Amino acid sequence: MLVWFLPRVLALPITFTLMNNQDKVLLSHGSGGRLSHSLIKDVFLKYFTEPQLLNNEDASTIPDLPAGKLCFSTDSYVVKPIFFPGGNIGKLAVCGTVNDLSMRGALPLYLSAGFIIEEGFLIKDLEMIAQTMFQYSQKSSVKIITGDTKVVERGAADKIFINTSGVGIIPEGRSVSTTNAKIGDYILINGTIGDHGIAILSQREGMNFSSTIQSDCAPLNMIVESLFNICSSIHVLKDPTRGGLGTSLNEVALASKIGIEINEDSIPISRTVATACEMLGLDPLYLANEGKFITFVPPEEADKILIEMKKNQLGIEASIIGIVTDSHPGLVLMKTIYGAKRVINMPSGELLPRIC
Amino acid sequence: MLVWFLPRVLALPITFTLMNNQDKVLLSHGSGGRLSHSLIKDVFLKYFTEPQLLNNEDASTIPDLPAGKLCFSTDSYVVKPIFFPGGNIGKLAVCGTVNDLSMRGALPLYLSAGFIIEEGFLIKDLEMIAQTMFQYSQKSSVKIITGDTKVVERGAADKIFINTSGVGIIPEGRSVSTTNAKIGDYILINGTIGDHGIAILSQREGMNFSSTIQSDCAPLNMIVESLFNICSSIHVLKDPTRGGLGTSLNEVALASKIGIEINEDSIPISRTVATACEMLGLDPLYLANEGKFITFVPPEEADKILIEMKKNQLGIEASIIGIVTDSHPGLVLMKTIYGAKRVINMPSGELLPRIC
Repeated sequence: MLVWFLPRVLALPITFTLMNNQDKVLLSHGSGGRLSHSLIKDVFLKYFTEPQLLNNEDASTIPDLPAGKLCFSTDSYVVKPIFFPGGNIGKLAVCGTVNDLSMRGALPLYLSAGFIIEEGFLIKDLEMIAQTMFQYSQKSSVKIITGDTKVVERGAADKIFINTSGVGIIPEGRSVSTTNAKIGDYILINGTIGDHGIAILSQREGMNFSSTIQSDCAPLNMIVESLFNICSSIHVLKDPTRGGLGTSLNEVALASKIGIEINEDSIPISRTVATACEMLGLDPLYLANEGKFITFVPPEEADKILIEMKKNQLGIEASIIGIVTDSHPGLVLMKTIYGAKRVINMPSGELLPRIC
Repeated sequence: MLVWFLPRVLALPITFTLMNNQDKVLLSHGSGGRLSHSLIKDVFLKYFTEPQLLNNEDASTIPDLPAGKLCFSTDSYVVKPIFFPGGNIGKLAVCGTVNDLSMRGALPLYLSAGFIIEEGFLIKDLEMIAQTMFQYSQKSSVKIITGDTKVVERGAADKIFINTSGVGIIPEGRSVSTTNAKIGDYILINGTIGDHGIAILSQREGMNFSSTIQSDCAPLNMIVESLFNICSSIHVLKDPTRGGLGTSLNEVALASKIGIEINEDSIPISRTVATACEMLGLDPLYLANEGKFITFVPPEEADKILIEMKKNQLGIEASIIGIVTDSHPGLVLMKTIYGAKRVINMPSGELLPRIC
């Protein structure tokens, strides 16, 4: 055993406080020492109040779960800008993972939250993000029960990245999967497409349209649950996020080995988004959404589902947009407003990076 | 409904392939489109082979779980450099979260993996990381069943960050927590301290010591399980990662409201780490470890536990390092090799950022 006789820098009782004079996140806030504990206590635990988090353990226990199959999902959020019309990165991080669980027919129950923060990030912005995450975890009835904070030096990350992972339970009798579309199924969407993509783009590029376009970012678990209450034969649920409606439809067509036909004039789109797309040469079919889902149901259930969707604030503009066919497996066709049929390809590259 | 008559950039059938001529990750690889699918298929699914991942669903289902309490944990990994003696960021990402679950007495079962990748990152490095993650998930008997990939533009992240979240089961009858230390408990550690911290530091700063210091990064679930097989009264398990042994002991002292006394000359440390610490003026008590754990057990169990630890490759240098006392609750004291007692404070700031 040797002695360490040189200065023990970390053993000195330095009297830092969390709120330094510039109210910014310091590298030391990610060290695992006293400042880390302060950041967690003064910012995160103000909003994340689950008893499991207060224990400061490496992992949290989940007390009891309803019957069913466990469902597990993860997503990292790198959206730029972190604050945008209709939300912020924290809202996206909660809603996005809640929705991923919902799209398997699961009841979302518990979330983790992992933060990677750039040195110099404003504490007040971090607070606002944490507050939003709490607000939307309450709104979607999920609990944030485990977390992690890392701080990297200035320039090593762009402001803040958040990962949320989610655990949920799929009640008995539900079988929802992108592989599950059946010939004859009707395809519905709960509202307008492209709002999130255009909201991010306009904020990022400082564009002004006649009216501000808000992101549609929202937790979808409640509206999805209302559909399960009236229909036990929902085949597919899918939220058209990155890559938009066009990509999601292609994914289902490939996974289920079926053909899809949609009608252009039945796809809801707001006038502002349509105008923005015209101006910018963008196809709204490939723009990201964060509060939309498509569902595939037997034809005899479609009207009932549509009525139920429209009762919900998030489904007022719901529409039946197409059908499943056996004629061109793996392919998505769109009947345009001129009556022609156009193949909707899986996009190759990226239109708008860092959309979520 | 409006028409989008300007060029539909994303609908064009561009014939990109994954392996572009420079074999680097492109922004488009994170778009959710065809290139994303290629990246997932050609890199990740080569190694992550769980059937749930092949489905390309938003969330994965977990088929059946052993009896017990569910345990959930998350950690983001931002280590710099991403390749270091004894491991890489992928090894750390698997072992770190496996260990977090183990430290609650849980059997780690399932992991998620969320990647944030800087544009231009080498595909071959990504492959090596994925391969290591697969290797260590096998070694620790966990399955990576859900994942996510985001690509950010050059300069918006430092190479690659990985989040892993983990789900495990705590078998009936185990009650392990940092709040659970009892007066009289003996404190054991499974080996030398500071190896990971010095391995990272020497690699980062290009230092050469007489022998290369390897990170101790390793999954601890097997050695921990071997202890549960012979002892049902393990009170505390804690891995001294960020902040090192000094911080972990302080956390237990505070959480359990007990005093801790350790003996300097019973703390295992390699000669190379000790020399490096002397040279650099670092206190090994605060250096990160990634393959070490401390455990608090009743005194009558300590010898048995020590013998069992030493049987394992990861516990050859195990040692009883101290005891729990009622005399100074919340405080950690160390009897130095000179017989004096020194207070081991919770460190305030950060010695080495981005250690994990």
